[in-house]
Amino acid sequence: MIKGFKAAAVSAGLKKDKAPDMALIWSETEAHAAGVFTTSRVQAAPVVLTRQNIADGRARVIIANSGNANACTGSQGLDDARRVAASVAEELGIRADDVLVASTGVIGRYLDMDRVTHAVPDLVLSLSDQDILPAARAIMTTDSFPKVSMFDGHAGRHAYRIQGIAKGAGMIMPNMATMLAFLMSDIRIQPDLLRKVVREAVEGSFNRITVDGDTSTNDMVLMLANGMAGNRDLSKEDLESFTEGLRRVTGDLARMIVRDGEGATKVIDVRVHGAMSAAEALRAARTVANSSLVKTAFYGEDPNWGRIMAALGRAGIRMKEDCVDIWMDDVKIVHNGLGNGMKAEKKASGIMTGKEFSVTIDLKQGMYRDRVLTCDLTHEYVSINADYRT
Amino acid sequence: MIKGFKAAAVSAGLKKDKAPDMALIWSETEAHAAGVFTTSRVQAAPVVLTRQNIADGRARVIIANSGNANACTGSQGLDDARRVAASVAEELGIRADDVLVASTGVIGRYLDMDRVTHAVPDLVLSLSDQDILPAARAIMTTDSFPKVSMFDGHAGRHAYRIQGIAKGAGMIMPNMATMLAFLMSDIRIQPDLLRKVVREAVEGSFNRITVDGDTSTNDMVLMLANGMAGNRDLSKEDLESFTEGLRRVTGDLARMIVRDGEGATKVIDVRVHGAMSAAEALRAARTVANSSLVKTAFYGEDPNWGRIMAALGRAGIRMKEDCVDIWMDDVKIVHNGLGNGMKAEKKASGIMTGKEFSVTIDLKQGMYRDRVLTCDLTHEYVSINADYRT
Repeated sequence: MIKGFKAAAVSAGLKKDKAPDMALIWSETEAHAAGVFTTSRVQAAPVVLTRQNIADGRARVIIANSGNANACTGSQGLDDARRVAASVAEELGIRADDVLVASTGVIGRYLDMDRVTHAVPDLVLSLSDQDILPAARAIMTTDSFPKVSMFDGHAGRHAYRIQGIAKGAGMIMPNMATMLAFLMSDIRIQPDLLRKVVREAVEGSFNRITVDGDTSTNDMVLMLANGMAGNRDLSKEDLESFTEGLRRVTGDLARMIVRDGEGATKVIDVRVHGAMSAAEALRAARTVANSSLVKTAFYGEDPNWGRIMAALGRAGIRMKEDCVDIWMDDVKIVHNGLGNGMKAEKKASGIMTGKEFSVTIDLKQGMYRDRVLTCDLTHEYVSINADYRT
Repeated sequence: MIKGFKAAAVSAGLKKDKAPDMALIWSETEAHAAGVFTTSRVQAAPVVLTRQNIADGRARVIIANSGNANACTGSQGLDDARRVAASVAEELGIRADDVLVASTGVIGRYLDMDRVTHAVPDLVLSLSDQDILPAARAIMTTDSFPKVSMFDGHAGRHAYRIQGIAKGAGMIMPNMATMLAFLMSDIRIQPDLLRKVVREAVEGSFNRITVDGDTSTNDMVLMLANGMAGNRDLSKEDLESFTEGLRRVTGDLARMIVRDGEGATKVIDVRVHGAMSAAEALRAARTVANSSLVKTAFYGEDPNWGRIMAALGRAGIRMKEDCVDIWMDDVKIVHNGLGNGMKAEKKASGIMTGKEFSVTIDLKQGMYRDRVLTCDLTHEYVSINADYRT
């Protein structure tokens, strides 16, 4: 844990299997806070409420539940989210608008408020500075492992840390936001600066992953920085180092989400170089990373580059077929739009048996590049999602 | 078959299983011709050549092969397509630019020209006016059944027919074009008018289906009208009836493609009403129809409307969550953005056990509507596409 933070987890009975399903993160002092939220036009009640509560750049507490997204629940859902915040605030003796609320799980069902409000006193009693892991577990839904990352830094003479937890395995194509991720630091940093740095870190990490191309209604990244490291104003160097630390922690968590993608057996780093604009580089990478045909070929360990070419062709970017080069890791399988021979394909097949590899596409049209992390599309993905609610 | 048309199919050995893989459609007289082609920036060699050969609005022959797409094959691929056209022209004693060439199958491999040119004389010898079915079979790849549709019409006192064949099961989200579909009629109609009518029919049929959201490099709809019905200039009524006939035949074939979608067990008609623009109606329908989470829920026969709401939320359309109504066939499962109770969901579950049903989404924002036919995402889809080339 980070200096001045405590965390807790309990089972409120929102999940069928009675696994832990509520998590609390508490800062001893008022923390500077920043958040990035889903761009979906359908926003879950906790997204609406937490946007309001974080607007002033300050917060004390994050309360999260899994098993129920409290999305598509209308005004009752919003009232429920407010009641959750109020009950936490009362129990802790703080203001309700210092409580940030997050939910994840099934869409379109009301929260079982009896269970939730019953669990709040237990949660508060369980707060401990020992271990973030129970909280990381309590926000899991179809996740198969808890996601935690840590960074140690220095601001002047003062040591500080950044710690983050995240959940996510399905409905993953964050767009200017992500699934749930909670970040903590004891660094002292001004709210405006914190907001900027968090937004940038999210852009390069959670906004560069996809599991199934479906953006969630509940995506939310929250960061609390409580200043207990005791540092003064950040020097330019300190800020760069903090930014880099945050980039590592968010990048780390984002990669874990893809690795834990529903049914996924592989993580693939889709890199696009030589695009004519930044937007086209991202668009090309996203289109390849989301193609069902490309993703099933990854699963089949088949270097079927024709499907990558087809995805590029429909991506709506400026490109010339006979300029495209494609690599699997360091093996070139396409040269100027044509196959580079069966020997290269065989080598590429070998690479694809691994759990992580990259696909690099050089369009040779311009200076821009981008990348998106994706996973393969498997039988298990279909099983998980055909049976999700039953 | 249609008056004045003959067809043939042979096995040239382009497929592993020695199934028929080459088809020929021949018009006794020069026919008026119209084509609609893939919008992909990566265009297969036969697409490039056939665009040129159909530009004058006239053609005599369609030659098609399955098992190899002749896509991403550069200048050699284009030469190969030209040699195919030349050998057919020579064998039939017609001009090479009256030959339309189409290919479908694996991307990125060169055609086995020995086998192809060997097969051409056999194909010509096999021409018969008895049955289009062998040709419909010869263009299949992962298709599980041949797709044929027929319409009988009258222009003045003259009876005419429209017949079409199509193939397609994967890499299906035609965009301004489609997979292979060949349409024949003995109606007499001017090339410009034919082009317009075909384009409209394609827009409402093949451009409104999706299997996996992947647009092919080889999509092509070709129509030949040889005028042998003997009708004069079409009256306004005749033209309307012909347009309607073509709409039926193309709609019929498009539905068959979705029904035969790789691994599909269900056909779902996704209808969007009340959008603020025509583009947004289509975009909303496409986004829902392509969502992996929605499609796996269809497979699981789970009326998981939260996933439909989530897909609408990220579709980039103007909408208000609390205005949305959703039906499964005639059962309303969402009213003003909220679930309509477990009774409705149970009824909807029952509907989803069927092989065909509709999802109707009313955004209640404007006057525009559109629809997209889609299928479910199944274990079998993953199996087919993980093993496609091996």
